[in-house]
Amino acid sequence: MNINQLGEFRLIDRLNRILPIDDKDVIVGYGDDCACVKVDDTLLLFTIDIQVEGSHFLKEKINPKDLGWKLSTSNVSDIVSCGGNPRWALLSLGLPKDLEYGFIEGVYQGIREAQDYYGFFTIGGNVSACNQVMIDMAMVGQTDRFVGRFGAKPGDYLYISSYLGLSKSGLELILMDKKEYEDFEKRLINKHYRPIARVDLVETVKQANSCIDISDGLVADLWHIVEKSNVKIVIEKEKLPIHPDLELYCKKYNKNLYDYILYSGEEYQLALTSAKELGLIKVGYVEEGNGVYLKEKSDLKLLEKTGFQNTLPTQQQHHLELTKDLTLLDKRLLHLLLVLS
Amino acid sequence: MNINQLGEFRLIDRLNRILPIDDKDVIVGYGDDCACVKVDDTLLLFTIDIQVEGSHFLKEKINPKDLGWKLSTSNVSDIVSCGGNPRWALLSLGLPKDLEYGFIEGVYQGIREAQDYYGFFTIGGNVSACNQVMIDMAMVGQTDRFVGRFGAKPGDYLYISSYLGLSKSGLELILMDKKEYEDFEKRLINKHYRPIARVDLVETVKQANSCIDISDGLVADLWHIVEKSNVKIVIEKEKLPIHPDLELYCKKYNKNLYDYILYSGEEYQLALTSAKELGLIKVGYVEEGNGVYLKEKSDLKLLEKTGFQNTLPTQQQHHLELTKDLTLLDKRLLHLLLVLS
Repeated sequence: MNINQLGEFRLIDRLNRILPIDDKDVIVGYGDDCACVKVDDTLLLFTIDIQVEGSHFLKEKINPKDLGWKLSTSNVSDIVSCGGNPRWALLSLGLPKDLEYGFIEGVYQGIREAQDYYGFFTIGGNVSACNQVMIDMAMVGQTDRFVGRFGAKPGDYLYISSYLGLSKSGLELILMDKKEYEDFEKRLINKHYRPIARVDLVETVKQANSCIDISDGLVADLWHIVEKSNVKIVIEKEKLPIHPDLELYCKKYNKNLYDYILYSGEEYQLALTSAKELGLIKVGYVEEGNGVYLKEKSDLKLLEKTGFQNTLPTQQQHHLELTKDLTLLDKRLLHLLLVLS
Repeated sequence: MNINQLGEFRLIDRLNRILPIDDKDVIVGYGDDCACVKVDDTLLLFTIDIQVEGSHFLKEKINPKDLGWKLSTSNVSDIVSCGGNPRWALLSLGLPKDLEYGFIEGVYQGIREAQDYYGFFTIGGNVSACNQVMIDMAMVGQTDRFVGRFGAKPGDYLYISSYLGLSKSGLELILMDKKEYEDFEKRLINKHYRPIARVDLVETVKQANSCIDISDGLVADLWHIVEKSNVKIVIEKEKLPIHPDLELYCKKYNKNLYDYILYSGEEYQLALTSAKELGLIKVGYVEEGNGVYLKEKSDLKLLEKTGFQNTLPTQQQHHLELTKDLTLLDKRLLHLLLVLS
């Protein structure tokens, strides 16, 4: 059996069972945005995330500074969603021998911008030869209260930290490869290339019962909370805020707004549950039960974990036609990217 | 300019300058086996190391358990050489979609064996699509005294923790791809596949002024101490212990013993300097000055940092002929491996 047949989540589950954790200092192991360990009186958070050429980015398409920024953001976002501040990072680079120095220098400049913005320091690293560019970042954060996916309670409100759907529309615009873009399109593209982790909300996260960063899409990520907390989450459709740029995009390209708001990944906004008033956007509530539901007036519809993937193939075809300058290999990987995104 | 023209050390140096560290809790940043930060009353050590298919191993040749063991060992060895005990690890996997599940399961079983032996726990990870198998491990260790490359002092003795030269001869035997091996050859091969980090020597390391693990070869690693400590290190040739299996190997294949003892990488033994009696193998001393020298009777010879690489090409050719079942790509990467090793 190959790993594609097994699927990502079953693969991870099987592998993790080979490495059980038996350490009283480990507060949280696998299965959340971060692992958490206790060192003296401090809770440290650990996460690791990678960007692989072809799977996560196309080298000819991406500005290397954006790549460095995005890699940093995805790690910081994991730390923030567990209630922590980012502190230290380690980098592991896999680089082809013939890579131009300017590319990796640009990646580092993007990481520097992210360090200055988010307030962490890179303290170590490692370089190896690899056929593809791959940049792995491990990050350490610090908190005094771990907030995870497992604490949602019936009676909680469901909050999100901002508009959703922008990253996915931005990616689609990039893949259209147009000669000219309208202003709103440029803004959406920028949301994809320069997402911002909500390091400004760390204190708010610490007030919540559960939190997750929206990297797989709102529905997929709420399912993680549902499964870890054993609750039912109801999204109230009319409460979901609609970003004016996304509205313009969906009108122009005849798309369904909620395919974006509910399923766009790499948003790096937060979804939180709490019985308190958190001062964020209230878009639903938590009940006893199981599953993620969309409520429209009195109608309640179960949202499948994998609901969106089925609607992708024709879009993929469309995108692949629009990126004729990519190699066949890149196209195969782009296909994979779209399936995973 | 591409990164190959720049060279690994100049590349790392340039990149690190883009990310300066300004954090009072960071005790040691770049340039040692581990970074070190202070958390409350504890010193934490951080390192990260990767195994990339083609650069570090050939998938068809390696037992995946050995791969998991070796990846763990290289990280543990960095922690140990800074005087720490390994505590926690994070894994980042890049896997081709068509990879057999059994391969990655084997890698995890090897990591499990290493965890049980060295006493650490893997607490988190991440899986991505990649054309090559690549397995990145970040590790956290703990100590009460950081020992680095910078503390060597004139008057120190030079110690090593055991025989050297076994890993390189083992690798050469593997690449010969023989149908049958003699017993001593099997033992050397095992030293390459199953190196052991000296976690038993952590308390001894803490007594030393400087320490490094021998991953690049004794001479190359002593140069790191020389540069960080501003000292001269003299190796006394007649004090270097000769392993009987290595002696058999060099006789059989007409090799020079000291090409192995001085230049074999991936040994994961330790080189230490201290004015105290450490109970290890005393093979030289530290003086004021600069450079790594070999003393034979009254003759003192400077050992270049890059001395050994010049003697490799004919051996590479030989090995490549002996590995006819490898793809052209693997051969190219094997070439790279030999140049880097």
